[in-house]
Amino acid sequence: MTSTYSLAVVAGDGIGPEVTDQALKVLDVVAEGAGLTFDRTAYDLGARRWHATGETLPDTVLEEIRGHDAILLGAVGDPSVPSGVLERGLLLRLRFELDHYVNLRPSKLFPGVPTPLADPGEIDFVVVREGTEGPYVGNGGAIRVGTPHEVATEVSLNTAFGVERVVRDAFARAQARPRRKLTLVHKNNVLVHAGHLWSRTVEAVGAEFPDVTVDYLHVDAATIFLATDPARFDVIVTDNLFGDILTDLAAAITGGIGLAASGNVNPDRTSPSMFEPVHGSAPDIAGQSKADPTAAILSAGLLLEHLGHAAEAQRITAAVEADIAARDGQPRSTQEVGEAIAERVAAEVPVA
Amino acid sequence: MTSTYSLAVVAGDGIGPEVTDQALKVLDVVAEGAGLTFDRTAYDLGARRWHATGETLPDTVLEEIRGHDAILLGAVGDPSVPSGVLERGLLLRLRFELDHYVNLRPSKLFPGVPTPLADPGEIDFVVVREGTEGPYVGNGGAIRVGTPHEVATEVSLNTAFGVERVVRDAFARAQARPRRKLTLVHKNNVLVHAGHLWSRTVEAVGAEFPDVTVDYLHVDAATIFLATDPARFDVIVTDNLFGDILTDLAAAITGGIGLAASGNVNPDRTSPSMFEPVHGSAPDIAGQSKADPTAAILSAGLLLEHLGHAAEAQRITAAVEADIAARDGQPRSTQEVGEAIAERVAAEVPVA
Ligand SMILES: CC(C)[C@H](C(=O)O)[C@@H](O)C(=O)O
Ligand SMILES: CC(C)[C@H](C(=O)O)[C@@H](O)C(=O)O
Repeated sequence: MTSTYSLAVVAGDGIGPEVTDQALKVLDVVAEGAGLTFDRTAYDLGARRWHATGETLPDTVLEEIRGHDAILLGAVGDPSVPSGVLERGLLLRLRFELDHYVNLRPSKLFPGVPTPLADPGEIDFVVVREGTEGPYVGNGGAIRVGTPHEVATEVSLNTAFGVERVVRDAFARAQARPRRKLTLVHKNNVLVHAGHLWSRTVEAVGAEFPDVTVDYLHVDAATIFLATDPARFDVIVTDNLFGDILTDLAAAITGGIGLAASGNVNPDRTSPSMFEPVHGSAPDIAGQSKADPTAAILSAGLLLEHLGHAAEAQRITAAVEADIAARDGQPRSTQEVGEAIAERVAAEVPVA
Repeated sequence: MTSTYSLAVVAGDGIGPEVTDQALKVLDVVAEGAGLTFDRTAYDLGARRWHATGETLPDTVLEEIRGHDAILLGAVGDPSVPSGVLERGLLLRLRFELDHYVNLRPSKLFPGVPTPLADPGEIDFVVVREGTEGPYVGNGGAIRVGTPHEVATEVSLNTAFGVERVVRDAFARAQARPRRKLTLVHKNNVLVHAGHLWSRTVEAVGAEFPDVTVDYLHVDAATIFLATDPARFDVIVTDNLFGDILTDLAAAITGGIGLAASGNVNPDRTSPSMFEPVHGSAPDIAGQSKADPTAAILSAGLLLEHLGHAAEAQRITAAVEADIAARDGQPRSTQEVGEAIAERVAAEVPVA
């Protein structure tokens, strides 16, 4: 049996295209071994297009992308474009329009990876970050801009519908993991309206998952534990902004954003999910073959898993783990890393 | 010459009273040597009063406190009180009513202090956290609470007036430090209205401080650098919520919240400033003499500095540094730590 998937590829800006190339290379090797085909359509979106046409994400392009089975994204953003234009107009627009309400960010300290922590312990948790609500909704504004009387607002919107579905997803993930532990992170002693909605929802949904242990941390305390006892975490569920912050810190303690993969998932499959490294476009090293493509490659693994090919996803993870264990600190180019991981995938005995 | 100050003491909940006792003990020793007198009024505020009377901060009490020269606060909050009641009704009400727009949080890794980082470098920065605006204003609400149609909002309010005054304060502090470096932390690629107000303000005020180097980090990236290269920071200026998060992480990497002091400062001196440890009320260890009073003691040092007694503040810092350097990992009671630091202060030759 062969399966053919349509894949929308948004390589984006900076190091985005370089790392995406390597992710696609590895994806192709895995696909070949598994009788899968990925029909790719590249979408030229990002800084170049914005400079040339003023467009971030035209409606027609969004509708085309919506027709695909999945999306692979590199990175978006460039200092030549005013801050926010591409992030809000392209990346966040994709996440919101395609209803990626589960922003999935696994954090695992692979053996051999350098970490800034002296005594990291066993780090293996996943952050389920809400992706379509909270302070990210773009519901803010400003008056008297540029005058001494300027007032600027940002509104965090949170709905029972939106919180419940992501909390339910997080509980299901926690239940499927050996430790079965869920930590809600919020700031419910200050952001009392949003925070209490989250707390009440976790309590209510938790009743359906009696075998999952639940605890709660304020976001500030959560950063302390990420630095001092990250092994305490199994599944973290949190809002869009707190999830953004915690997952960068989580990446830092597990070897850096060069290794951190993420999925913007629509669990209801009413639109294609999107997979991307946690890192940004890193314009300072773009075009120099210095970027680590591992996070992009692991994101392709998450894509395979989402499409139901867990064994193939596992082949990518295993190849990456083996590659990391063999790293000796010698610098390698983006291509060399991608090539090395692709070769390991090819050399593995495919899981029958 | 002797100076007499009126000091309002809000010991609060949990370990608050224990650590405040030690801070007052040390303060008295320093004061005696310097010809200063602190006339103390204790205010019984917190969980006990709320349970007994339903009051968090009666207007009359607030007005009394307002008449003092400074406030020393222990910690506020208890699990027996619904989350947010005391935080919003007491602690944040004090910060907002007394216009504590500079929430000052120094982070220094003292020699000998255990840190979770393998290679911390020289950590010595200060976070200037805005204290009267942002997502902390309490401008949110909810409809259809407890139903599947609940919607909860939190509004971040940011004004040119409020941002400019705290940014100016941060620049002045940066200018007075050897490295003269200021880092703005925000999320201006997502929270574009608030973020751009902050960025424009830093640019504008920076023109008056040409000798201060300025850079910008998104809040997520800032957490990475706090874990991987905290020595890069000198002065950080940021909003109320980001400052809350960053300063707990900063405390974690510099030995924990047992050592982190803070000042809620009104630089215009139109109302008393308030000094408190960064840690919370830690009800799990309350009443057991296990709490580390060092953060509370260092907060008393910040209080002295704010009142213009820099040399006396320095005596506290020096005594704490010496005490920390002599720590051998043996557990000491709250009282023993306070006593040891007080003795070191007494034994020091006072600065003429
Ligand atoms: C680029 C930015 C808009 C984005 C976010 O804030 O979500 C990034 O930081 C991420 O974590 O994917
Ligand atoms: C107790 C809480 C309201 C407070 C805050 O969020 O400011 C605390 O975390 C702090 O940092 O002082």
